[in-house]
Amino acid sequence: MPDKVVTAAVLVIGNEILSGRTRDTNLAWLAGELTKLGIRLTEARVVADTQGAIVAAVRDLKEKYDYIFTTGGIGPTHDDITAEAVAMAFEVPLVRHPEAVRRLEANYATPADLNEARLRMANVPDGAALIDNPISKAPGFRIGNVHVMAGVPAIMQAMFDGLRSELVGGRKMLARTIDVDLAEGVMAAELAAIQRAAPEVEIGSYPRMRQGRPSAAIVLRSVDGAALVGAVDAVLAMMRELGGAPRDDGSATA
Amino acid sequence: MPDKVVTAAVLVIGNEILSGRTRDTNLAWLAGELTKLGIRLTEARVVADTQGAIVAAVRDLKEKYDYIFTTGGIGPTHDDITAEAVAMAFEVPLVRHPEAVRRLEANYATPADLNEARLRMANVPDGAALIDNPISKAPGFRIGNVHVMAGVPAIMQAMFDGLRSELVGGRKMLARTIDVDLAEGVMAAELAAIQRAAPEVEIGSYPRMRQGRPSAAIVLRSVDGAALVGAVDAVLAMMRELGGAPRDDGSATA
Repeated sequence: MPDKVVTAAVLVIGNEILSGRTRDTNLAWLAGELTKLGIRLTEARVVADTQGAIVAAVRDLKEKYDYIFTTGGIGPTHDDITAEAVAMAFEVPLVRHPEAVRRLEANYATPADLNEARLRMANVPDGAALIDNPISKAPGFRIGNVHVMAGVPAIMQAMFDGLRSELVGGRKMLARTIDVDLAEGVMAAELAAIQRAAPEVEIGSYPRMRQGRPSAAIVLRSVDGAALVGAVDAVLAMMRELGGAPRDDGSATA
Repeated sequence: MPDKVVTAAVLVIGNEILSGRTRDTNLAWLAGELTKLGIRLTEARVVADTQGAIVAAVRDLKEKYDYIFTTGGIGPTHDDITAEAVAMAFEVPLVRHPEAVRRLEANYATPADLNEARLRMANVPDGAALIDNPISKAPGFRIGNVHVMAGVPAIMQAMFDGLRSELVGGRKMLARTIDVDLAEGVMAAELAAIQRAAPEVEIGSYPRMRQGRPSAAIVLRSVDGAALVGAVDAVLAMMRELGGAPRDDGSATA
């Protein structure tokens, strides 16, 4: 799908994020990786470990976006209810996956270690395909466009790395960042005019303070390299016209 | 409302978070502060700077939760469209707020500095009340249960600090964390039984590796102090029974 815009949503599942106890890092990591793959992360949500919240979010997101990635709630304890909730969202039964059982059996020293709670980690919605977990073995799974991954960042990242080759991105988003010693309010009318003239470029303005003086980072993003360069040139000329000294990062990477 | 559960949602608005360019810190900060106020953050969303996405999220969230807090998109540039979108979500016109204009006038050295783009920062949905911005003056606003704040963390935090006295929390959530040198899978059946016996306590299990060995943090949360202590005692006894050496943080704070 090289010409299509491919979209994704991330669903972070976990009370610990919402209580402020744990600072989520999975969203930022996935945002960067999806961008590199030419997949546009379009929405993210954080919901609690409750069946109603997870089911409603999965149902809503899977209809709206090409890819959904969830993190959290796939361990062995009573608060790990993601697999059940995803099965419910897809209206399929939860089944014990034989290959997942085999992987768990291989991972525990004795049959007694693989207790019923741990065997729950082999439960997946009927029809799901496993997502490898090279670290702690208990797999994630994919059903439809929903990819269910662990919440522990190292495990989530390893799972995602294994998925990469299956994910089909669209045209890569190219980006340029221009830092300038001007307040964004000074450039706003001119920036808006450049944005109107280049609708295929997404122009973002991010104010910051630098040594107590207002400055701004202007970020230009587009899948169209020529349009991007044209808009960057217009922004640089505008900044110089207004007496600014822009610093262009010169790269046009995602 | 001391006996009521008071809920909140956070809506983070900004392409820069979804592209991975900027790591959001506002959600984690708000999560912690709301918890301290006895307000339960129940959902968070991140959406792009597009009118449709913001309007849909605000409409949905304002019906579901007691308080909504948005961050981002209230500056002077073309990509700052939060005020317009919130007006649309409430189906009221966007109006120029006289007191907001006065604050902006007081903040700029000359009338020429307060250009039309900057004056846009005085536009709010009809009927909105201003939220003070002690740092860069351009105010946020509240309409209904929706509090619209800046995206720059220092400004957002200052705005929230000014709001605190207006926010009415419910019973404070008390929490205890118990670290133990046991894998969560070993304790899972027992934890589930303790959870069943104490439905008014929310028991979360968070696996971690410590010096290459599995361990876990069990977090118990409740608005009911006696129920919390009972469940903590049950968890400690269970861990010792299983040969673990639990370390209880001993505190019962939010």
